[in-house]
Amino acid sequence: VINAGKSQHNEDQACCEVVFVERRPSPRGRPPSREDGGELDGVRAGAARAGGDTTGRVPVKGFYFHYWALFDGHAGSGAAVMASKRLHLHICEQLRDLVDILQDPSPPPICLPHDPRASPVEPGRVPLAEDDGEVPNDAVPRFHLEKAVSHESLVIGAIENAFKHMDDQIEREQASQRLSGGCCALAAVYLMGKFYVANAGDSRAIIIRNGEIIPMSREFTPETERQRLQFLAFLRPELLGKEFTHLEFPRRIQPKELGKKMLYRDQNMNGWSYKKIEEDDLKFPLIYGEGKKARVMATIGVTRGLGDHDLKVFSSNIHIKPFLSCFPEVRVYDLTQYEHCPDDVLVLGTDGLWDVTNDKEVAGVVMEVLTSYEPNDPCRYTMVAQELVVRSRGVLKERGWRLANDKLGSGDDISVFVIPL
Amino acid sequence: VINAGKSQHNEDQACCEVVFVERRPSPRGRPPSREDGGELDGVRAGAARAGGDTTGRVPVKGFYFHYWALFDGHAGSGAAVMASKRLHLHICEQLRDLVDILQDPSPPPICLPHDPRASPVEPGRVPLAEDDGEVPNDAVPRFHLEKAVSHESLVIGAIENAFKHMDDQIEREQASQRLSGGCCALAAVYLMGKFYVANAGDSRAIIIRNGEIIPMSREFTPETERQRLQFLAFLRPELLGKEFTHLEFPRRIQPKELGKKMLYRDQNMNGWSYKKIEEDDLKFPLIYGEGKKARVMATIGVTRGLGDHDLKVFSSNIHIKPFLSCFPEVRVYDLTQYEHCPDDVLVLGTDGLWDVTNDKEVAGVVMEVLTSYEPNDPCRYTMVAQELVVRSRGVLKERGWRLANDKLGSGDDISVFVIPL
Repeated sequence: VINAGKSQHNEDQACCEVVFVERRPSPRGRPPSREDGGELDGVRAGAARAGGDTTGRVPVKGFYFHYWALFDGHAGSGAAVMASKRLHLHICEQLRDLVDILQDPSPPPICLPHDPRASPVEPGRVPLAEDDGEVPNDAVPRFHLEKAVSHESLVIGAIENAFKHMDDQIEREQASQRLSGGCCALAAVYLMGKFYVANAGDSRAIIIRNGEIIPMSREFTPETERQRLQFLAFLRPELLGKEFTHLEFPRRIQPKELGKKMLYRDQNMNGWSYKKIEEDDLKFPLIYGEGKKARVMATIGVTRGLGDHDLKVFSSNIHIKPFLSCFPEVRVYDLTQYEHCPDDVLVLGTDGLWDVTNDKEVAGVVMEVLTSYEPNDPCRYTMVAQELVVRSRGVLKERGWRLANDKLGSGDDISVFVIPL
Repeated sequence: VINAGKSQHNEDQACCEVVFVERRPSPRGRPPSREDGGELDGVRAGAARAGGDTTGRVPVKGFYFHYWALFDGHAGSGAAVMASKRLHLHICEQLRDLVDILQDPSPPPICLPHDPRASPVEPGRVPLAEDDGEVPNDAVPRFHLEKAVSHESLVIGAIENAFKHMDDQIEREQASQRLSGGCCALAAVYLMGKFYVANAGDSRAIIIRNGEIIPMSREFTPETERQRLQFLAFLRPELLGKEFTHLEFPRRIQPKELGKKMLYRDQNMNGWSYKKIEEDDLKFPLIYGEGKKARVMATIGVTRGLGDHDLKVFSSNIHIKPFLSCFPEVRVYDLTQYEHCPDDVLVLGTDGLWDVTNDKEVAGVVMEVLTSYEPNDPCRYTMVAQELVVRSRGVLKERGWRLANDKLGSGDDISVFVIPL
């Protein structure tokens, strides 16, 4: 991470951890039974060794995940700092209910007993599964219309909900602690042979495998999410506070242009058309500006992330948060499906990197630096990350920070992880 | 087109036309001036010859587009028949305002005078352009934030709005004429060197070029549009009429399962998670079923198209139309960017084709049939279309219509266009 010097505290924050997911204790307080012996001994043994079960009697059941994440803060570092310290714990918490299910190769059960203490079975009704806190073997014949749900999609759902819980926690802190701002979040979770890359914001992840670039995320900006935002504003015009119009125009309209025809886009259009300018069209457009300058309600340039509960349009009482989503898009990369060599890596970077360095250039630096180190030198990946950050910042010359091609270096905080596959 | 015999009238309808787009007359009733001589003589001469201006004095200005479209009707053929007779005229009407703009290589003007008779210039204010009904050369310096809009995106916008006008016309007819049902619409417009393929529904278009398959559409179904539909239902729960829940579940929930935990997906999730079943979750899910059996409110299996204004959930007063979109996705293929040989084609087909024949098999039939005819035989493309339809229907055997691989043939109407590139 390099601080661009824009703010006293670095607005980019990062975290990497190995997290142990411990199975939630059995609701009735008794130790797990079915799983005490069986085909998953190895996993549990490893878990027990590290899980820190202090009673020494029952092996703690669980699994590990590896975790790397970047948080690009805005309007302060508060949300980024907090998310960097807590998001992996929320992911862990979401996964705790899935410890048995994810380690069982059979399809996940559609229905589980909730908490047997809280939901007594009504007399005369047969429970679908034994209320013993175990994963039930659903004995009742299933409806013929039953959707198959994969283990993978449970992990995706767990990560999605962890982002939501993280966002809720930031909201509570913002209310009580004057914690300010918001942040983009990009997190990579390695679990049971698969990478889950979750992105909410404009950071980016790519895999470089055998010189080939595989995108592992897409950016969420006012331009890429225009139709979702316009649709919401169309259905909930009160969110625009009479100051904004949900229509998009290629530029501001002047009052004297009333009655003329102007290009516009509505929420269900990808093309442009002309419409007669009416009084309402003189309002400021919900989405305005191009590329890095595009903004939601003239305020924010990213449309997903954590925090921003306090963010309002300048000198107004119009909240931005309803237009932002805390939900990430999660992409999955199955490491077991490919052969990997020591030069294959996953690169995570904040927009400080990607604004001045494209995928291909990053792949070039990766290859260049890795070949200058021995394949078994563990430092080589850190050196790639450092080189990417330094090159994107550039060198201080008379006319400011300059890249090798003499273009301006990134004026933003720059953070990079390079993770060997 | 083959009628599957499901209905008295064929529910698949088709249209192909060469349409002349005549420039709209000058608002003040005087002939066009600036364009009478200039760099576009050739285009206008061609237009004048065919445009049929009977006065003999002023050459009619305009251009042609070529048009092919398939309409797959449901719940009657009414909407499909009407759309097959009118959609190209709506596209023509939308393009009429663009005749000058599309033929001018400079970027489209952001702002046009509306109708000079209706919008007098206020005293003391300088008009942005001369009110002479011409395309203005915007003389006022533009704001520095001005989005560039391409000619291509104007054509896309024109086609999108034509679908909307077509849908509105069907609504008016449905109100007065008892015209019933709805239809998917897939239209290909060839204009000025580019193909614009507009799809609203579950028909499909592919280009086969040098044996390679290039998708030119995607299908709009309850599964592919789940999140848009759930989002709408979440924001407008009254549209669900207390009968449906916007949450997705992998199967129906039984009342006795109240209090247990069940897999679900909310509108902002792609993964699955468990939730405690509450009273509200016993309602029928907005989206239910898998693949071809997926339905919106247990009623309809496509989420875009024309018509269906009268469609309600069985024995209820809940309308489906708010969840359907009449807007197509338009994809563009620039013919001038590639070399084409006589075997390169655009294939349009309704789901009667694609349900039993995949892209690769279609490409195989295309190659097989085309090679059995001379490259300059104009019948060869029609023969491909016929072969595709016949093979997808299969042969009547003792156990019903069977394909070459003995699987069941398509039980649906089957329609195919094969268009040489």
